[in-house]
Amino acid sequence: MITIHGDSNSGNCLKVKWVCDRLAQPYRWIEVDTLKGETRTAQFLKLNSAGQVPAIELDDGRTLAQSNAIIRYLACGSHLIPSDAFAAAKMDEWLFWEQYSHEPYIAVCRFQMIYLGKSASDLDPDKVKRGYAALARMEQQLAATRFLVGAEVSLADVALLAYTRLAHEGGFDLDDCAAIGRWIGETERAFGLAPARRD
Amino acid sequence: MITIHGDSNSGNCLKVKWVCDRLAQPYRWIEVDTLKGETRTAQFLKLNSAGQVPAIELDDGRTLAQSNAIIRYLACGSHLIPSDAFAAAKMDEWLFWEQYSHEPYIAVCRFQMIYLGKSASDLDPDKVKRGYAALARMEQQLAATRFLVGAEVSLADVALLAYTRLAHEGGFDLDDCAAIGRWIGETERAFGLAPARRD
Repeated sequence: MITIHGDSNSGNCLKVKWVCDRLAQPYRWIEVDTLKGETRTAQFLKLNSAGQVPAIELDDGRTLAQSNAIIRYLACGSHLIPSDAFAAAKMDEWLFWEQYSHEPYIAVCRFQMIYLGKSASDLDPDKVKRGYAALARMEQQLAATRFLVGAEVSLADVALLAYTRLAHEGGFDLDDCAAIGRWIGETERAFGLAPARRD
Repeated sequence: MITIHGDSNSGNCLKVKWVCDRLAQPYRWIEVDTLKGETRTAQFLKLNSAGQVPAIELDDGRTLAQSNAIIRYLACGSHLIPSDAFAAAKMDEWLFWEQYSHEPYIAVCRFQMIYLGKSASDLDPDKVKRGYAALARMEQQLAATRFLVGAEVSLADVALLAYTRLAHEGGFDLDDCAAIGRWIGETERAFGLAPARRD
């Protein structure tokens, strides 16, 4: 059984939980409070020298970090990774894009508002602009296809759901993103998640 | 034959070229000048709606973006991806880490110095600090193993080589990184590359 070291408030960590739950893979969850510096202890740095959650530990002590690398490993051979090589590559395109062009804006704005107490007007305007550009790209895709890589749910949807469903907590207005709203609901249902609050 | 749309000055684009060359996969290279806004034209946005190079085009018109997704697709089934599932996952861990914790600091500092004319003292100190943290993590790994995922070269080395070999152009001093220096040389030789200037 794997052990997940994660912070329940982190979308990156929840991706791992959702994939395990969906694939009925048993796991032990060890809560790590990033705000209290628990990813910077000598003990944690042995799990992941980058000092980031999530990290997983196998029974034999081997460890793996980076949320999207973890879910790709756990979902290997499952329906969450397309069997067609090109479709799997398109999934990977979304996974890398998520970490480079979505998470640093959508998740970081949320972090600054929820955990650092910033107001929306205090956010870096460049981060807000890039966050909206990321949402626009998703909206364009999801107006054309049911899920990000076509008709079937994949890890691309898990990875992008994590922070998109909480984008409003970072001050982002999704009222003009009808396709994203539809997709959030469908993906939440596909993973048995209660709807995120949208107030 | 695939077509690579890339900027020869971009490490992200060179990754794709190096993998094709190493695997003797024929390709057509179309030069895209990012500084002249050529990734923002309507024609380019059809290739990649994210407006970034590299992007590849297959003979049937299908397109794929994100450097690490592209090299993962092109190298599928080759010796550049470990056949062991866990070792492949460790490779993925480095690929995602590269895009989140290395490229945004090492490559961005280089871009600002080389293309925007900034001096090292004008760089964002936080970016410099995070760049050195990334180098320290690589040094720690490469002092323990020949390549990033053990004894054999993999896509992790290609991805990290791209900007690490040019880190000095972004003001980073690698004099204390003996293991990185050794690894740059070995990886450059593995891919038949002339040594990057280190002045």
